[in-house]
Amino acid sequence: MTIQVFNTLSGKKEDFVPISGKKVLMYACGPTVYDLSHLGHARTFIIWDVVYRYLKSAGYDVTFARNITDVDDKIINRAKEVGIGPEKLARKFTYSYWHDMASLNVDFPDYEPRATEYITQMIAFVEQLIEGGNAYEAGGDVYFDVSSFKEYGKLGKQDLEQLLVGAREQVINQDALSALKKTPVDFALWKRAAEGELGWASPWGRGRPGWHLECSTMIKHILGESIDLHVGGEDLVFPHHENEIAQSEALHKKPLAKYWLHNGFVQISSEKMSKSLGNFSTIRDLLTTFSPDTIRLFVLQTHYRNPIDFTLESLAATHAGIQRILKAASFAGTSQNGAGVEASPAALSVAEKFKSDFNEAMSNDFNTAIAISHLFQFADAINKTKDEKDRHFQALVLVKHASILGLTLEDRRLQIDSPLGSKLVDLLLNLRQEAKAKKDFASSDLIRKSLTDLGINVMDSAAGVTWERI
Amino acid sequence: MTIQVFNTLSGKKEDFVPISGKKVLMYACGPTVYDLSHLGHARTFIIWDVVYRYLKSAGYDVTFARNITDVDDKIINRAKEVGIGPEKLARKFTYSYWHDMASLNVDFPDYEPRATEYITQMIAFVEQLIEGGNAYEAGGDVYFDVSSFKEYGKLGKQDLEQLLVGAREQVINQDALSALKKTPVDFALWKRAAEGELGWASPWGRGRPGWHLECSTMIKHILGESIDLHVGGEDLVFPHHENEIAQSEALHKKPLAKYWLHNGFVQISSEKMSKSLGNFSTIRDLLTTFSPDTIRLFVLQTHYRNPIDFTLESLAATHAGIQRILKAASFAGTSQNGAGVEASPAALSVAEKFKSDFNEAMSNDFNTAIAISHLFQFADAINKTKDEKDRHFQALVLVKHASILGLTLEDRRLQIDSPLGSKLVDLLLNLRQEAKAKKDFASSDLIRKSLTDLGINVMDSAAGVTWERI
Repeated sequence: MTIQVFNTLSGKKEDFVPISGKKVLMYACGPTVYDLSHLGHARTFIIWDVVYRYLKSAGYDVTFARNITDVDDKIINRAKEVGIGPEKLARKFTYSYWHDMASLNVDFPDYEPRATEYITQMIAFVEQLIEGGNAYEAGGDVYFDVSSFKEYGKLGKQDLEQLLVGAREQVINQDALSALKKTPVDFALWKRAAEGELGWASPWGRGRPGWHLECSTMIKHILGESIDLHVGGEDLVFPHHENEIAQSEALHKKPLAKYWLHNGFVQISSEKMSKSLGNFSTIRDLLTTFSPDTIRLFVLQTHYRNPIDFTLESLAATHAGIQRILKAASFAGTSQNGAGVEASPAALSVAEKFKSDFNEAMSNDFNTAIAISHLFQFADAINKTKDEKDRHFQALVLVKHASILGLTLEDRRLQIDSPLGSKLVDLLLNLRQEAKAKKDFASSDLIRKSLTDLGINVMDSAAGVTWERI
Repeated sequence: MTIQVFNTLSGKKEDFVPISGKKVLMYACGPTVYDLSHLGHARTFIIWDVVYRYLKSAGYDVTFARNITDVDDKIINRAKEVGIGPEKLARKFTYSYWHDMASLNVDFPDYEPRATEYITQMIAFVEQLIEGGNAYEAGGDVYFDVSSFKEYGKLGKQDLEQLLVGAREQVINQDALSALKKTPVDFALWKRAAEGELGWASPWGRGRPGWHLECSTMIKHILGESIDLHVGGEDLVFPHHENEIAQSEALHKKPLAKYWLHNGFVQISSEKMSKSLGNFSTIRDLLTTFSPDTIRLFVLQTHYRNPIDFTLESLAATHAGIQRILKAASFAGTSQNGAGVEASPAALSVAEKFKSDFNEAMSNDFNTAIAISHLFQFADAINKTKDEKDRHFQALVLVKHASILGLTLEDRRLQIDSPLGSKLVDLLLNLRQEAKAKKDFASSDLIRKSLTDLGINVMDSAAGVTWERI
């Protein structure tokens, strides 16, 4: 099945044909590590994790790099506020970020370069841009000369002439610092460091790299001059990715990436969810109440290019829905190896239909929203299947596909409150049975009602009493 | 109070006098990230974390660097087994290590350099050693010429002549590879990489650094040519630290570190606890049963230079004992600011005595074993104090000193089973009260006994019913 992707560069959906057969070189812009990650980050990193997983499951040999920006004005300023060094602050938030990603079952990429590891290579990159006439030094800073790259604006659909005209008009009001630039559209490749500021030695004096430079440099050194997939949040299209293209393509004279994919925002009351708006919920806040699977399903239930309107109610609705999938998955048992599992032709046919629907959705620009609706339908079908072998076979198929979405399918009932929590519930249910046996229905009803109030659903059946978290 | 430390270099206890006034430059050898951390690592990193904390509390301006070895044969081999790249494997275990350290309340050091970040500087270090006649290239490898450094053996108390004689005798049986070395005592600064192996370009061809080199190089670039405190596990004395000395002192002609401190092992049945023996318990295994404070107290209850004999029973005994400290700390209330807290002269005097005893122990080569015995005595005194103000004042002093040992003093009773766990216990106790009210003592006793069996101690008093985890 041909995979189609919406390419920001062309503005349309295209067949995905990697540069070299089944090899895929993929790069995602990672976080600037100066604060805790919020749901907006979760969405970005979950969706690209799913693309990574799906391409691998579809037989591609994917090499995935996702960077960490560990030198930046935001980090330096936050470190000053907190009273520790910027390197220590960046390291603490790198750890927090990894912790959040691990909690959300986002896999480690194959490479995870940090900006500070590539200072030497960044300096060499800038030197080559200066040699080629695409950059110039000015007072210890180095700027990219946008007018030297005729394709500037092609990703963000900006007209270079218009940008330069607008920039010339702006020049009248510019301050002394930006007067160093030939035109305000030019962007910094290297920024000089003031006395006492974080900096590295360079041919232009002590300074630090501009933000855009690190991605171009890391892609070059880790993946190569041309890659297949460059992905990131839609706020990065312009100017960040535009500037990456300008830097890399001015130097290498070949496309930086064949396909550019961008994900939409998470919005609260239709405002972008970001740190600067101060309306974010951190991932770890959310994880105190919702399972990783709930958060993954929640963000994947919207196609990656569309905005998500976030409310706690919608997250809670996802949480309730997921029980259907967990129940169906439980029929897979502990063995997740389907070898030798037999099923009836009818059950096989339902499973084959699901596989085909799931893949059709995923290969259509990674439409996880549709794929998940098929997952739910399939789960419902499994939950209604009476034949044990059929159910087992189908559940194995479900588990395999859920793992492409990165769902853990862990039954939170067994985990959320530690083994002790489960034992306490069992103790309460034993007391309830005793009360019943003594015809003390007031007590037995009270126990049941109290458990329900605590979010524990007690289910009586011929086979005995079981319970689950609501 | 003068701090005294046992210096491995001199083999005796010395007054601790930093090179520059109150500034302390401190370096600890960190882990090689190819597996989960075990209790042996926990001990090493906890003790040096306590030294870092204590020196800061004693008014020193400490800069602490602790490295991460992220390129090594062990990493390369494990990565091959697992089927992922060595960089990804090292990153996963760096995350695990950070996670374990955070769980144990081990603070991030000021700097945490990774070997792969310092390849360029390591190559320059080797070039300078070759120029100075202390190293030689042989078939793409570079070796340190031990015979060129007359003080070799001074840390590990080895006689250079004896080592060289032994080495010459060994030469008879040497293989083709070690034939490249002038003498078998010489150690690798740089190892050539075979085709397809991890490696970096160097003046001697593609290769990777020898393990000893990274610490010398990082210390030079992060802290300087001479530091105050170099610490690590006692297995590192020879040859690792000896080789660090040889490299750095041959190049800089000055002492690498003024004080060398080494901690003892954690033993199981008197065998060193290490991965190669396969008898380790991982930190995360231990943390499923024991609190971070229990593990910290357990390792700190033995002086850092002595071996610890590890048994689960001894850890459980520490776990039981810690309740006395938690109880005393609870009188500090939520405010941990003692400003304006009044106490009687008697209470003040007990607190002053404790402070003085605690500091005397800690300044005596960081004798945490004695310091903790004072902490327990003080906790017992607080638990017996009837006056609320006195108790509050003393508890604040206790909390402050416990934090020097890195104890969190978190009451696990409130945390271990999540808020739901607590509510379930409360529900059971309500049922017990009702049973009592109905004179149904069989039921109320059963509930109490069942809770005790689950490790929950129910305490009846005039003020009502409370509970705690045993």
